[in-house]
Amino acid sequence: MVYDAAVIGTGPAGVSAALNLKIHEKNFLWLGSKQLSDKIRKAEKIENYPGIPSAGGEELTKAFRDHVDRMGIEITEHMVNSILPMGDHYALMAGSEFYEARTLILTTGVAMKAALPGESEHLGRGVSYCATCDGGLYRGKTVAVICNAERFEGEVRFLAQLAAQVHYFPTYKGVGEMPENVTVHADRVTAVLGEMKANGVQLKSGEQLAVDGIFCLRDSITLSSLLAGLETEEGHIRVDRSMATNLPGVYAAGDCTGRPYQYAKAVGEGNVAAHSVIEYLDRAGKE
Amino acid sequence: MVYDAAVIGTGPAGVSAALNLKIHEKNFLWLGSKQLSDKIRKAEKIENYPGIPSAGGEELTKAFRDHVDRMGIEITEHMVNSILPMGDHYALMAGSEFYEARTLILTTGVAMKAALPGESEHLGRGVSYCATCDGGLYRGKTVAVICNAERFEGEVRFLAQLAAQVHYFPTYKGVGEMPENVTVHADRVTAVLGEMKANGVQLKSGEQLAVDGIFCLRDSITLSSLLAGLETEEGHIRVDRSMATNLPGVYAAGDCTGRPYQYAKAVGEGNVAAHSVIEYLDRAGKE
Repeated sequence: MVYDAAVIGTGPAGVSAALNLKIHEKNFLWLGSKQLSDKIRKAEKIENYPGIPSAGGEELTKAFRDHVDRMGIEITEHMVNSILPMGDHYALMAGSEFYEARTLILTTGVAMKAALPGESEHLGRGVSYCATCDGGLYRGKTVAVICNAERFEGEVRFLAQLAAQVHYFPTYKGVGEMPENVTVHADRVTAVLGEMKANGVQLKSGEQLAVDGIFCLRDSITLSSLLAGLETEEGHIRVDRSMATNLPGVYAAGDCTGRPYQYAKAVGEGNVAAHSVIEYLDRAGKE
Repeated sequence: MVYDAAVIGTGPAGVSAALNLKIHEKNFLWLGSKQLSDKIRKAEKIENYPGIPSAGGEELTKAFRDHVDRMGIEITEHMVNSILPMGDHYALMAGSEFYEARTLILTTGVAMKAALPGESEHLGRGVSYCATCDGGLYRGKTVAVICNAERFEGEVRFLAQLAAQVHYFPTYKGVGEMPENVTVHADRVTAVLGEMKANGVQLKSGEQLAVDGIFCLRDSITLSSLLAGLETEEGHIRVDRSMATNLPGVYAAGDCTGRPYQYAKAVGEGNVAAHSVIEYLDRAGKE
């Protein structure tokens, strides 16, 4: 089945887009964390979201979550690894799943400025963004895992069941308990090493570590690896006032389109992007 | 005193802009109705304002109003009649008051497409937008009043105390009780008549009515009469992604910048406009 639209991301921009697609009875897929935005949930106090004065992050997340539940909107909890243009629609690789949608709304949050040196070059040759997809390749081997969010710890444990040795490089605080064959490092990975195939990581301390594979588990991947040909500007997706990107049927909203990084801006852009998608589908339906 | 900013309009875009200017401790003036937006208040049900599910218009207005009150933000209840560029700041004529501000955020709602034929030409020569300012000129005379919102009925009664005869042309439903010398017409004014000075109105029925003056009391006036030189596009203020208009220090947000006419879009744009003003003031302060 080809969906009318896929919304990627469950922060405020994604919530706003999803509400509008639902009201307009579009058949859409919403991919992201059921916990919505980590960033909001952890916010101490939000004073400038009109109508919800002086909310804590938990409170605002709950208000969004209740709204989504009340409208009966489902979230499919998968990270999107890559998107391919298929002529009149797009194919999405999300974990080990495959989806198709005629339009996209990207609400991926503040994007990574850049991949690590050597990362993009070795993607699919020793570097992977998906433990579920590629974990099996490293049975009994040694892997490094770079991870920026607690929510991926399940994937780290999954890798630990397969690999002989896991070198874990979390970039967040409060790492949970890990299996015995996981070494948690305080050092930082600064580059992926290797020629034809990745074979190690360079650490900030100067040390190098030989590994068979490198998993990068992050909230967002670089925009160019997500969707080739997507135009960006200073690390943000370039959009016009209708939230259209340079690719047909692809819209973006929220922090990924640029500053100010604000909840009100994000919900506004999500709303506009959804209405642009609705118009795009109407136009396409008439052709 | 020259304010840092003037926000014109108290709909959702204005609310969002005001909250952000307040948080950033700017010295700003907020002009508009203390009842906030008539359009929202009368909305039956709003399902797509994220975080406030299935709100009635009254409920959402109350949520905005409480937020504004809680932040201690004042609304100055004046309609802005015209704005003049003064080099490094702008002068605002609002009722019989005069204000000055270095920057402007226009959140004036859906703009009138165009003035009536003959209206702009006779502004100040028989046509007025302000009963308080110009009512005294028509003592003992006959005036026509064109009005699109109940909230101006006080001004109509004020005019009735001065003029001998008031021909009232409301374009809204539910007109309140009027003094004896006010004739409420069901007909519509289609043009302002007169040569050097306005001297009558053309009605839709084909009839013409001789009057000494014409008052146009409307929620919004045409953008070109509000601020000369402001670029518009199909009846909306032309803005870029930072909500900047073509005039330095002038930003716009909400329905006045174009579709979709949505609360979420309006609060998003109000937020962005406020942040752009804050940046503009910072830059100007460093020069």
